[in-house]
Amino acid sequence: MDLIEKAAAGDTLAISRLLSEVENDSEQGKKALDELYARGGQAAIIGVTGPSGSGKSTLVNRLALALSCPESGAPRQVAVIAVDPSSPFSGGALLGDRVRMRDLGVLPNIFIRSMATRGALGGLACAAESAAQVLDAAGFGLILVETVGAGQSEVDIARLAHTTVVVEAPGQGDDIQAAKAGILEIADVLVVNKSDKPDAAAAARTLEAMLEIGAQMVHASQAEENARWQVPLVSTCALDGSGVEDLKQAIMAHQAWLRAHGGLEEKNRARAEDALKLAAREHLFKEWQRGLDPGKYRQALENVLARRLSPRQALERLLKP
Amino acid sequence: MDLIEKAAAGDTLAISRLLSEVENDSEQGKKALDELYARGGQAAIIGVTGPSGSGKSTLVNRLALALSCPESGAPRQVAVIAVDPSSPFSGGALLGDRVRMRDLGVLPNIFIRSMATRGALGGLACAAESAAQVLDAAGFGLILVETVGAGQSEVDIARLAHTTVVVEAPGQGDDIQAAKAGILEIADVLVVNKSDKPDAAAAARTLEAMLEIGAQMVHASQAEENARWQVPLVSTCALDGSGVEDLKQAIMAHQAWLRAHGGLEEKNRARAEDALKLAAREHLFKEWQRGLDPGKYRQALENVLARRLSPRQALERLLKP
Repeated sequence: MDLIEKAAAGDTLAISRLLSEVENDSEQGKKALDELYARGGQAAIIGVTGPSGSGKSTLVNRLALALSCPESGAPRQVAVIAVDPSSPFSGGALLGDRVRMRDLGVLPNIFIRSMATRGALGGLACAAESAAQVLDAAGFGLILVETVGAGQSEVDIARLAHTTVVVEAPGQGDDIQAAKAGILEIADVLVVNKSDKPDAAAAARTLEAMLEIGAQMVHASQAEENARWQVPLVSTCALDGSGVEDLKQAIMAHQAWLRAHGGLEEKNRARAEDALKLAAREHLFKEWQRGLDPGKYRQALENVLARRLSPRQALERLLKP
Repeated sequence: MDLIEKAAAGDTLAISRLLSEVENDSEQGKKALDELYARGGQAAIIGVTGPSGSGKSTLVNRLALALSCPESGAPRQVAVIAVDPSSPFSGGALLGDRVRMRDLGVLPNIFIRSMATRGALGGLACAAESAAQVLDAAGFGLILVETVGAGQSEVDIARLAHTTVVVEAPGQGDDIQAAKAGILEIADVLVVNKSDKPDAAAAARTLEAMLEIGAQMVHASQAEENARWQVPLVSTCALDGSGVEDLKQAIMAHQAWLRAHGGLEEKNRARAEDALKLAAREHLFKEWQRGLDPGKYRQALENVLARRLSPRQALERLLKP
C-alpha cells in the first residue's frame, strides 16, 4: 500500500508525511492532491480566527475535544490545522505543536498539524486548502483551521471555511473598533473569550451593539430576514472551559442552517472557483518565469530601478515577443 | 495643469483624487503611476506594524509629528498611509481618518490617507506600493505605512519599507511567543509601547532576550557582526509621547546605516523586482480570464465541484487549446 492509500485509510504517520509532501509542493504531493480530491468533500471546515492574545489556541484545543464527542454515537474524527502566517520556518509552529500535543495528542481521534505559511507558494489560502483536502480525504469529518487574525489571512480563512468563528477578547485596545467593521462581516459565530476578565461584559455589549447595527444596515424584508443567519455571540473562558459547549452548539447550528439553506453548496462552489483561479495564477506565473529571457529580465529590472520605466511599462516591453 | 501635474506639485486635493484613481485602478490612475514613476525614488518609506491593541495608530500620529520636525532646517513633508487589510469598504478606514485628522490634519506638512485593501487588486502590497509611489513623486520625503500586523500583511510591508518598525505591547497573551519568531526577523526597530503598563518591563526583557538569541543564531564572523544592523529595542508610551523621540532617532539611525552599507540600493532592487513580478502576475491572470471560453470555464468548475477532477487537473484541461 503506498503513502496515498495509507493516508486515505487514516494512517496518522502517512497523513503527516503526505502533508509535508503537499507543503513542499513535491511531485508526490501534487499527485496526492489530484488522487485524493475525488474522495473529499465530506468534511465540515471550521475556521477560527482572531487577534493574537485572544486565547484562540487554548479555545481551539477545548473546542476540538468538545467536537470530537458527539451527542450520540462514535467519537468524531477531528483535525486541527494551526496556521502561522508570520513564520517562515516551522520553529514557532513546532512550539505550538508541542504545547497542544500535551493536551490533545493522547486522544486517538484528534489530529494536530501546525503549518508555517509565510512565503508558501500561493500563500496561506493555498497551503491551508491543500492540507484540508488531504485531511478531508483521510476521513476527518471536522477540520478546524486556526489562524492569527487581522487582514488577508482572515479573509482567506473565511473563504476556505464553511463556518467562520471570530474570537475576540476584552481589553484589546483602541484600534479594535475600526478593525471590527470588516471582521464582523466574515463571522458566522462571534466569541468573546476570557469571560472571566472584568471588562468582558462590556466588550460583549459593544460587539452585540455592532451586530445589531450591522443587521439593521441590511434593510432586509421580513422573508429575507427569516432566511438570514443570525450571528450568535458566545462568551467563553478557554482556561476553565466554560462556554465551550455553547460554542460547539453554535457551530453545529450554523452547519445545520447551511445544510437547510443551500449554503454548503454555495460555499463549496466559491471554494472550487477560488481553487481553480489560484491554480491558474500560480501556473501562469511559473510558466512565464520559465520562459523568460534572463538578459531581457535583467534589463527590465534595471530600467525600473533607474526609474526609466515604470514596472508596468517594463513589463509591457518584456511581454513583447 | 492636469491632475498629475498638480499632484506632482504637491497640491493636496489633487493628491487625494489621484490616490483614489490609483486605488480604483482606473485608466487615469495607471497613467499617473507610469508618469510619476520617474519622479519618485526620493522618499524614505517606514513601515509600522504590530498587533491590534498595541496602540500603533496613536504612536504613528506622534511619530509623524516628531519626524516632521527635523533637527535643523525646514519641516519635512510626512505622509501617513494607514492600511486596513480587513476592511472591504472605507467605513472603518474613514473612522480612523477622522480620529487622526483631529490630531494631525491641522498641520500643513503632514498628509494622511486611509486605505481599505481587502479585495484590492494585487492585495495590500500592490495598493500600498502604488499609494507610496504617488506620495513619493509628490515630494513627501518620509512616508509612514501603518498596518495591523500578523501574517502576510507584515511581510508585505517589510518588503515595501526601507525601515520596518514592529510595535508590541505588554499583555498580548499566550500566542505571542510563537508569533515572535517570524516577526522579529522583519523588524529593523522593535518597540514596546504602553511603557506605563506594569508588565511593560517584563515584555521588554523577553523581547530583549529573543533579540539576543536571534543574534547568536546567526553565527556571524566578527567582521560580519560589525557590519550587521543591531535591532534596537525602544520603549514608548504613545499616550503621553514619552520615548517617541528615541523612536525617531532609532529610525533615523537605521536610515543612515542603510545609506552607509548599500542597504537602500538592495531594498530598492528587491522592491523593483517585487513590483515587476506583481505586475506580471496580475497581467497574466487578467489576460487569461479575458481569453477564457465561458462554457469551458463553467464545465471546469462543475468538474471540480463534483470532484470528478482536482483543481489542477481541471486547469490543465482548460489550458489545452
